[in-house]
Amino acid sequence: MIYSLEDIQFIESLFSRFYDIGATLSGGVTRLGYTKEEDEMHNLLGVIGKEMGLEVMHDEAGNTFLGNTASKDGYYLIGSHLDSVVDGGRYDGTAGLLAGLLVMHWLKRNDRPVPVRVGAFRCEESSNFGIATLGSSLVTGHLKDMDLSRLTGRDNAVLGDIFKEKGYNLRPEKIRGIRGYLELHIEQGRVLQEYNQRIGLVTTIAGNRRLNLYIQGMAEHSGATPMTMRQDALCAAAELILEIEQIGLSESARSSVATAAVVNVVPNAINVIPGEVRLQVDTRGVEADSLQEMERRIKEAGMAIAQRRGVGFIKENITDTEPVRMCSPMLDKLDKIVHKLGISYRRMISGAGHDAMRFADICDTALIFIPCRDGVSHNKNEYATMESICEGAMVLYSYLREEYKES
Amino acid sequence: MIYSLEDIQFIESLFSRFYDIGATLSGGVTRLGYTKEEDEMHNLLGVIGKEMGLEVMHDEAGNTFLGNTASKDGYYLIGSHLDSVVDGGRYDGTAGLLAGLLVMHWLKRNDRPVPVRVGAFRCEESSNFGIATLGSSLVTGHLKDMDLSRLTGRDNAVLGDIFKEKGYNLRPEKIRGIRGYLELHIEQGRVLQEYNQRIGLVTTIAGNRRLNLYIQGMAEHSGATPMTMRQDALCAAAELILEIEQIGLSESARSSVATAAVVNVVPNAINVIPGEVRLQVDTRGVEADSLQEMERRIKEAGMAIAQRRGVGFIKENITDTEPVRMCSPMLDKLDKIVHKLGISYRRMISGAGHDAMRFADICDTALIFIPCRDGVSHNKNEYATMESICEGAMVLYSYLREEYKES
Repeated sequence: MIYSLEDIQFIESLFSRFYDIGATLSGGVTRLGYTKEEDEMHNLLGVIGKEMGLEVMHDEAGNTFLGNTASKDGYYLIGSHLDSVVDGGRYDGTAGLLAGLLVMHWLKRNDRPVPVRVGAFRCEESSNFGIATLGSSLVTGHLKDMDLSRLTGRDNAVLGDIFKEKGYNLRPEKIRGIRGYLELHIEQGRVLQEYNQRIGLVTTIAGNRRLNLYIQGMAEHSGATPMTMRQDALCAAAELILEIEQIGLSESARSSVATAAVVNVVPNAINVIPGEVRLQVDTRGVEADSLQEMERRIKEAGMAIAQRRGVGFIKENITDTEPVRMCSPMLDKLDKIVHKLGISYRRMISGAGHDAMRFADICDTALIFIPCRDGVSHNKNEYATMESICEGAMVLYSYLREEYKES
Repeated sequence: MIYSLEDIQFIESLFSRFYDIGATLSGGVTRLGYTKEEDEMHNLLGVIGKEMGLEVMHDEAGNTFLGNTASKDGYYLIGSHLDSVVDGGRYDGTAGLLAGLLVMHWLKRNDRPVPVRVGAFRCEESSNFGIATLGSSLVTGHLKDMDLSRLTGRDNAVLGDIFKEKGYNLRPEKIRGIRGYLELHIEQGRVLQEYNQRIGLVTTIAGNRRLNLYIQGMAEHSGATPMTMRQDALCAAAELILEIEQIGLSESARSSVATAAVVNVVPNAINVIPGEVRLQVDTRGVEADSLQEMERRIKEAGMAIAQRRGVGFIKENITDTEPVRMCSPMLDKLDKIVHKLGISYRRMISGAGHDAMRFADICDTALIFIPCRDGVSHNKNEYATMESICEGAMVLYSYLREEYKES
């Protein structure tokens, strides 16, 4: 099969209907999870679903599903999300739903009764409540051990109150009947673009170890303190930043990354030697061993630098998540399908987290990447072509068609 | 001579009268230049002057002077300031005036008609209007080429408006009749404490070159961008920070210092590779050559790092000030006096700027340091002993007595 200009126009017109929701002066969109902007996105998805003759369903976490008639007794789920970060882009999440809707369109047009639901999961971004993939986590039984009711969003709204008002449930019924989970997402990196490939088949979603590293030196007058009398927290931090880069590079062979991403200097004043630095470090990897190794080496490096420079050093773990493997037999099938479609592709890892992580332990799960320009994401310059979304949808559709043939 | 318990009590009681002015919840004081808190300090100084039988004078920049009757036709000026940084300490500036008042007290008690004025200069700290030593600069004819009228303070008050309301003049009459300028100040560093010495005789006040260094990399997803595809602005900045430290160390022999003091990372988010870093660097030195050399080497280092890492680099000068030498014959005299008093001392440089800088080109000028605990300044933990202030006052008094004997 090959997509047509009509197919492009189909998703382009849907895309334009979402366009203005949460639009900001910056040119991007702010559609934070469990806010009225996300509600609007979900409402519009429901309207579109009805127009397409699909059944519109909501679960107890506020997630929205569009199902065809065949999907009553078990279905393939094409999942994604409709929320965004603050001043984010319009493709992250939404692209996956456009692809899902196009698949539904094709199934209907070609009269193929494959049981499929398209699902939009709430609050995938951590931007509002500090926790990512909230909607999908709730209905897959993750986050069971946390009391989420007191979480507050950026506008100080309390999650428990929102759920009460909307009639949602923080202990919702678990999602059932999924034969397999498929998700299309923009890559949010430059790998596909660099290798000039059109589709990425994700083998593993990286886990992470996020660390707070505190370095305690002495804040003194920058003019009155000779170089040899200093305990400069920033110079110690600079050494550590470079060590972290080296550690990331040496773990590159295992597809890991390590990033010193956040720096806070106290007092951060031109006439005072930095007395205190807090670094936030994001390490990610698809191998648990590698994550462990990076954390160990970062801690060792910090302690060695601190001892040599006579400053204090504290390491604190912010979050630990384990790598999540996608379904291997599904990958093999997708391999063949993409090959047959004649689309260039590669197997790759996902450094970013996605709703797909939440499904991997309850059903066969696959995650498919399409390129986004220059790897830019989470801001107004995020861009993917409608052609890429159509290509991704073709992969999903072809997979479902094959599956149904088999079953 | 030796100071008595009574002398300590004299300045201690004065110190306590200033204590509450501008007190903050942190435990420090905020007495910003040309605000009502600084006005209060100057008013109280006037009240104290009258109690001591001194003539109280104000100039067109709002500076306050207390003169004895001998000071009508030329006088020695003991200068300092009464303003503070935000949440600053109670000794920076004020200690110099306490010493000056004690000298006045001794002159009167011992009936020595040495012509002396004690001067409190406005707005020595740059904290309010971004420019240091405003009051002393105005009346010594510095800052002539700048339009200061539109400068706004931290509370958005406009300097021109303040001057109008108070009847001050941004082009005031120049100060006249000074036979010599003396200033006592807390060291704001740890040199005296480290060497266990009680008095510092300043040879030169360091000049500075302050630089903005901008590093432009690429902000990308920290999980989705392999280590080898990155242009991490923070890693480049870290290299530069360590180079700046090395440059400062290698210029230590010429008493220079170099400090990367301020870091701003954009976007400073845990899941984004730092795309942009601004460093603010403070270099100081008593030799103009050394300042020049440090600036050159920092620029070269920045350019080399940027080229190697494929990031952008821009250097921008914030301020350039030249080193100011104190009066050599005065230093020689002070040397003898301190030696004769049996107080341990050293010749040293001042890394910090002081009002004395403004007088060096119009009269013989000396700057005398007393220790402050652990070198801490510009916050509530700033502390100097009343004994140190008495010792410093003894040096000033002895110098003036000798001078008067000679003249």
